[in-house]
Amino acid sequence: MDRDAFAQSLQDLRADRTHGAAELAGRAMDVLEESARGAAVTDGAALKRELDWRAGALAEARPGMMPLANLTRRFRADLDALDPADPGSLRRDAAAAARRLRDVARTAAEQAADNAAAAISAGSTLLLHSESSTVRRVLHRLVGHDVRAIVTESRPRDEGRSVAARLAAWGFAVDLVPDAAVGLMADRADLALVGADTLLPDGGVVNKAGTFPLALACRAAGVPFCVVSKSFKQRPGDMPPPDNEADDPGLLHPPAGVTGVNWLFDTTPARLVAWWYDEHGAHRGPAAP
Amino acid sequence: MDRDAFAQSLQDLRADRTHGAAELAGRAMDVLEESARGAAVTDGAALKRELDWRAGALAEARPGMMPLANLTRRFRADLDALDPADPGSLRRDAAAAARRLRDVARTAAEQAADNAAAAISAGSTLLLHSESSTVRRVLHRLVGHDVRAIVTESRPRDEGRSVAARLAAWGFAVDLVPDAAVGLMADRADLALVGADTLLPDGGVVNKAGTFPLALACRAAGVPFCVVSKSFKQRPGDMPPPDNEADDPGLLHPPAGVTGVNWLFDTTPARLVAWWYDEHGAHRGPAAP
Repeated sequence: MDRDAFAQSLQDLRADRTHGAAELAGRAMDVLEESARGAAVTDGAALKRELDWRAGALAEARPGMMPLANLTRRFRADLDALDPADPGSLRRDAAAAARRLRDVARTAAEQAADNAAAAISAGSTLLLHSESSTVRRVLHRLVGHDVRAIVTESRPRDEGRSVAARLAAWGFAVDLVPDAAVGLMADRADLALVGADTLLPDGGVVNKAGTFPLALACRAAGVPFCVVSKSFKQRPGDMPPPDNEADDPGLLHPPAGVTGVNWLFDTTPARLVAWWYDEHGAHRGPAAP
Repeated sequence: MDRDAFAQSLQDLRADRTHGAAELAGRAMDVLEESARGAAVTDGAALKRELDWRAGALAEARPGMMPLANLTRRFRADLDALDPADPGSLRRDAAAAARRLRDVARTAAEQAADNAAAAISAGSTLLLHSESSTVRRVLHRLVGHDVRAIVTESRPRDEGRSVAARLAAWGFAVDLVPDAAVGLMADRADLALVGADTLLPDGGVVNKAGTFPLALACRAAGVPFCVVSKSFKQRPGDMPPPDNEADDPGLLHPPAGVTGVNWLFDTTPARLVAWWYDEHGAHRGPAAP
C-alpha cells in the first residue's frame, strides 16, 4: 500500500460514521498489514519509521475509539521489537503482527458475543441503538430463538434502519422507532444491549449519542441496560478522557442562522449499567436487578 | 360551515401532527364558531344537536389533547343552556360561546407565558423539544434578552427545524441537535422548557415523545425541567388516562419486513418536574433545585 492509498484509507476511516469501533479497528489492522507488505520503502529502518507513523496516524484519526488506540499501540510495540536488518523479514513479521492483532480482536469479539448471547433468554425483546459489530455477532447467535428487536433510527445517519433490515432478513420480528421514543419503548423490552466505542476506567461507556438517554429510560423502567464489548476497549486509567468527535452538522439541515451541533458520542455512567459482557465473561454492574 | 367543510376541518385536525394541543383547541373553537354561524340547519333544536355532535367529534379526533376535551366540554355545557326557540339568537349565542372560550384559552396561555418568562433570567440557555404555541409565546417575550436555545430535531416530523428557524429569525442564538443528543446537551442548558398536551391529575406531563428522556437527562445533569401550559390542560382525576396516538409509521421509512412504530406522546412523571407555569403562577415541583 503506497502513501496515496494509505491517505485514502485514513480519510475513509475518519469519514466513517456508521461502523463501530471494533469494526474500524479491524480495518486499521488490515491497512497496516497491507502497508507492511507494500509500502514503497526499501530501507528496513525507514520502513519501521513509516509503519510506526502510519499506526499513529490511524489511531489519531478517531480519538474516541479505544480499540483503535489499543490495537495500534500493541502493533507499534510489536514493530519496535522487530529487526530492521532484513527488510523482507521485517515486512513479513510486521504484516503477521497486524494480522494476529486483528484475529485476537475478532476472537475476543466472538467470545464476548458468546457470553452475551448465553445470558439472553429465548423469546426476549431487545432494545438496540446504533450499529455495533459485536452486538451484530450476539444477534446472529440468537437467530431462531424467537427474539424480538426494537431498533432506534439512530439519527442523523440512520444506521438503525440498516440494522433493522439485516435483523428482519435474519428472521427477527423488528420494530423501528424514533430515537425520541426510548422513554416509551424501554418498558416493552426485556433488556437493552449496546456496544461501546470506549470503556472508561470506572466502567462508564462511551458510545453513539443517544446511548445515555436510552440507559436512563431503562433505569426508569427497571429494564437492564447491558453492554457487550471486548475488554481491550478499556481505557487505561492514566489516559485522559477521549475528546468527543463531531460529525457533519450539515446532516441536520440547519435552517439559515441556526447552528447544527452533531456530536458522535455520549457517556453513560457505570451506575446505569446492569451487565458488561466481554471475552472473559459476564460482569455484574450497579444497575443489575 | 356546512357538513363537507366540517368533515374537512375534522380531517385536518386529525392529521395535524405538528401543532400543539393549545393551538389545535383554539382552531376547534374557530370551527365551532363558524359551525354555529353557518351550519345548514333551520330548526333550533336540530342546530343544537348538530353543534353538540360536532363538538364531540372534534374532541374525539385527538383524544390525547386535553385542552380540546376541556374546551369542547365547556362549549357543550354552554350550548345546552341556550334556548332553541329562536334559531337566529341561538346561532349568535353559540358562536359567541365558542369565541369566548377561545379567547379565555388564549388569555390563559398569555398569562402562563408571562409567568414562565418572568422566571427565566437574561442570558440563559434553554433546551427545547417539539412545538408548543405556549412555549413560543414565552420565547417571544424573551426576544432581546440574550437567551440561547438548544432545539431538538423532533423526529420524525422535524418540527424542531421550523422552531429553530423562527427563533433564529427572532435573533436568538440557536443550536439544532438530534433528539438522541439530549444526554449530551442537558448540562449545557440552564433549564429545559416544554409545553404539554395533557397534564395528568398527579402532575405528570403527556407531551411529544422524547419529552420523558429529555426530562431524565435534565435530572441526571441537575438542570431544571420546566413545563408551561394553561391549567385547563389538567385532566380530571375521574377521567381514564388518555390513549396514546400513533402517527404515520411510514415517516420512519421502515425497510421491508420491519414494522415502523411511531407513537406521538410519552408521559413524564411529576417527580422529574422542577416547575409548572400556568396562568395562575409558578408551581414548584419535586425536581426543583
